[in-house]
Amino acid sequence: MIGTLAAAISGIRLAATKKFDWFGAYTVGLVTAIGGGSLRDVLLNLPLFWMQSAWYLCITAFSLVIVIVFRRFLVRSDKILFLFDSVGLALFCVIGIQKTLAAGYEMWGAAVMGVITGAFGGVLRDILINEVPLIFRKDFYATACLAGAGVYWIVMLCGGSTVAMGLSCAGTVILLRFLALRFNLGLPSLTAIPDVKNP
Amino acid sequence: MIGTLAAAISGIRLAATKKFDWFGAYTVGLVTAIGGGSLRDVLLNLPLFWMQSAWYLCITAFSLVIVIVFRRFLVRSDKILFLFDSVGLALFCVIGIQKTLAAGYEMWGAAVMGVITGAFGGVLRDILINEVPLIFRKDFYATACLAGAGVYWIVMLCGGSTVAMGLSCAGTVILLRFLALRFNLGLPSLTAIPDVKNP
Amino acid sequence: MIGTLAAAISGIRLAATKKFDWFGAYTVGLVTAIGGGSLRDVLLNLPLFWMQSAWYLCITAFSLVIVIVFRRFLVRSDKILFLFDSVGLALFCVIGIQKTLAAGYEMWGAAVMGVITGAFGGVLRDILINEVPLIFRKDFYATACLAGAGVYWIVMLCGGSTVAMGLSCAGTVILLRFLALRFNLGLPSLTAIPDVKNP
Repeated sequence: MIGTLAAAISGIRLAATKKFDWFGAYTVGLVTAIGGGSLRDVLLNLPLFWMQSAWYLCITAFSLVIVIVFRRFLVRSDKILFLFDSVGLALFCVIGIQKTLAAGYEMWGAAVMGVITGAFGGVLRDILINEVPLIFRKDFYATACLAGAGVYWIVMLCGGSTVAMGLSCAGTVILLRFLALRFNLGLPSLTAIPDVKNP
Repeated sequence: MIGTLAAAISGIRLAATKKFDWFGAYTVGLVTAIGGGSLRDVLLNLPLFWMQSAWYLCITAFSLVIVIVFRRFLVRSDKILFLFDSVGLALFCVIGIQKTLAAGYEMWGAAVMGVITGAFGGVLRDILINEVPLIFRKDFYATACLAGAGVYWIVMLCGGSTVAMGLSCAGTVILLRFLALRFNLGLPSLTAIPDVKNP
Repeated sequence: MIGTLAAAISGIRLAATKKFDWFGAYTVGLVTAIGGGSLRDVLLNLPLFWMQSAWYLCITAFSLVIVIVFRRFLVRSDKILFLFDSVGLALFCVIGIQKTLAAGYEMWGAAVMGVITGAFGGVLRDILINEVPLIFRKDFYATACLAGAGVYWIVMLCGGSTVAMGLSCAGTVILLRFLALRFNLGLPSLTAIPDVKNP
C-alpha cells in the first residue's frame, strides 16, 4: 500500500513535468504503481491483481490529490518518498517472487518476475512519457531486486520459513538501495561504438 | 466496423507524417484500431477478438488503400472522420464494458476496461510512432468514456435493459465529444514543478 | 538458438549506442531476442516459452559478454551477424506459424503471429530505447515473414509434410532478406501530408 502510494506519486510528479492533464497524470501514476505487477500477471497468465479490489485505483486517486494540493511541500520531502519507494520496491519484489513460485515456476523464473514486478512499473512509465527508461542508465532498482532474490534463494535452500525468506529478501533490497544512494553505486556502462549499424 | 475504419485511418494518416512505409503504416493503423480491445482481452485473459475473424485485418487494409488513393480528399473530410471516430469510441467503450461485466467483474472494473478499449488504441499508436500520447494532454477521449460508463451504471441501477444501457452510454460519449469540440473543453493540466527529480 | 544469439547481440549493440549500463543492455538484448515470441504467447494465452528453460537468459548473458569483450571485432563481422539474424528470423517465423496453427487458429492468424514472432522483438527493442521502430521505415523483415507464410500455406495446400512446409518457409525468408540487401529492395513510403491533424 505504501509502495503503491510512493510509486503513484513518483509517476504523477514526472507527468507534471510533461504538462499532462489530470487524466494523463492519473494514468501515468497508475501505470507506475501497478504496471510491474500487471506485466507479471499477464506474462504468467494469472488474473490481474488490481482487478480484484478497487483499492489500487483509490490510492492512485489519493496520490493525485496529494500532488495537486501539496505540490510545493513534496519537493522538500524527497527523503520520505525515497524511503517509501524503497520499501515499496522491496515488497513488490517479494510478492513477485512468491506469486511466481506459487504458480509452479522455478527460482530463476521467480527472480525474473521479482525484478519485473519491482522495476518495470517505472519502465512502462518512462515509455508512456516518451523517455528512455531511467533504470537502464542509472540502475540499482533491478540489481537490488536480483540480489534480494538471491538472498531469498539462499534462505530457502537453508530451510528458512516463508516469513524469513520474505524479510531477508526485502531487507537486502532496502539496504542495497540505501547503500547505492549513499555511495553512489551503479553498474558500469557500455561505451558507445560510433559506427554501429542495425544488421 | 465504422469505428475500426475511422481509427485505422487516423493511425495511418499519423504514420504518413512519419514517412513510414506501407507495412509500418498498416501496422500503426491496425494497432490504433484493435490495440485497445487487444489490451483489454490480454488483461482479462480472454481470447483475442480479432483472431476470431479476418474482418479487422481486411478493414485496416481497406483503410490503407483509402489513405493512399484519396489522400488529398481526406484532409477536407475531417468532420466526417470526427463523426466516425466518436461513434467508434462510443461503441468500443460499450463493448469493453459489456465484455468485462460478462467476464464476471464489477462495474468499476468494467469502466476501466471501457476506457482502455476506447482510448488505449491511440496510446499504443503514439508509443509506436514515438510521441507523447495525445490523450494525456488533450483528453476528453477518456473522460467521455468514464462519463459514459457512469451513465451505463445509473441505467443499470434503474433496471434498464442491456440495449438501454448501451445506447445511453454511447449517446453520452458522443454528446460529450461534440460538446468538448464545440466549447473546447478539457481537464486542467498539472503545472510543472521545475526541480522535480525521480526519487 | 543462433537466432536468439544474433537478436540479443543486435539489441545489446544498439543499447551501447545509448550508453545503457549492463542491466539495461541485458534487458534490451533479452527483449529483442524473446520479445516477439513473448508477445505471441501473451496474445494467444499460452505459457511463456522462455519460462520453460533458463537457456534463453543464459544465451543473452553470453551475448552481453561477447559484446563487452569483442566489441571492436564485432564491427567488422556485420556479414556473419546478418546471416545469423536472417536464419533467426526465418526460424522465429516458422515457430510462430506452427505454434499458432497448433493452438487451433487458421492460416491467416498464423501468418500474423509469424510476423509478430519474427519482427516484433525489434519493435519492442526500439520502444525501449525510445526510437521510432526501424522496420516501419526500412522494412523487409515483416514482408519476408509474410511471403514465407504464403509459401508455407501453398506447400500446406499441396499436401507437403511439416518439415517441407517449415523448410520452404524458412528458405523463402532467408532468400528474400538476401535479395533485399543485395538489390536494396523496400516497400514504398507514404509521403507526408503537411496539414494532417489528429481528428
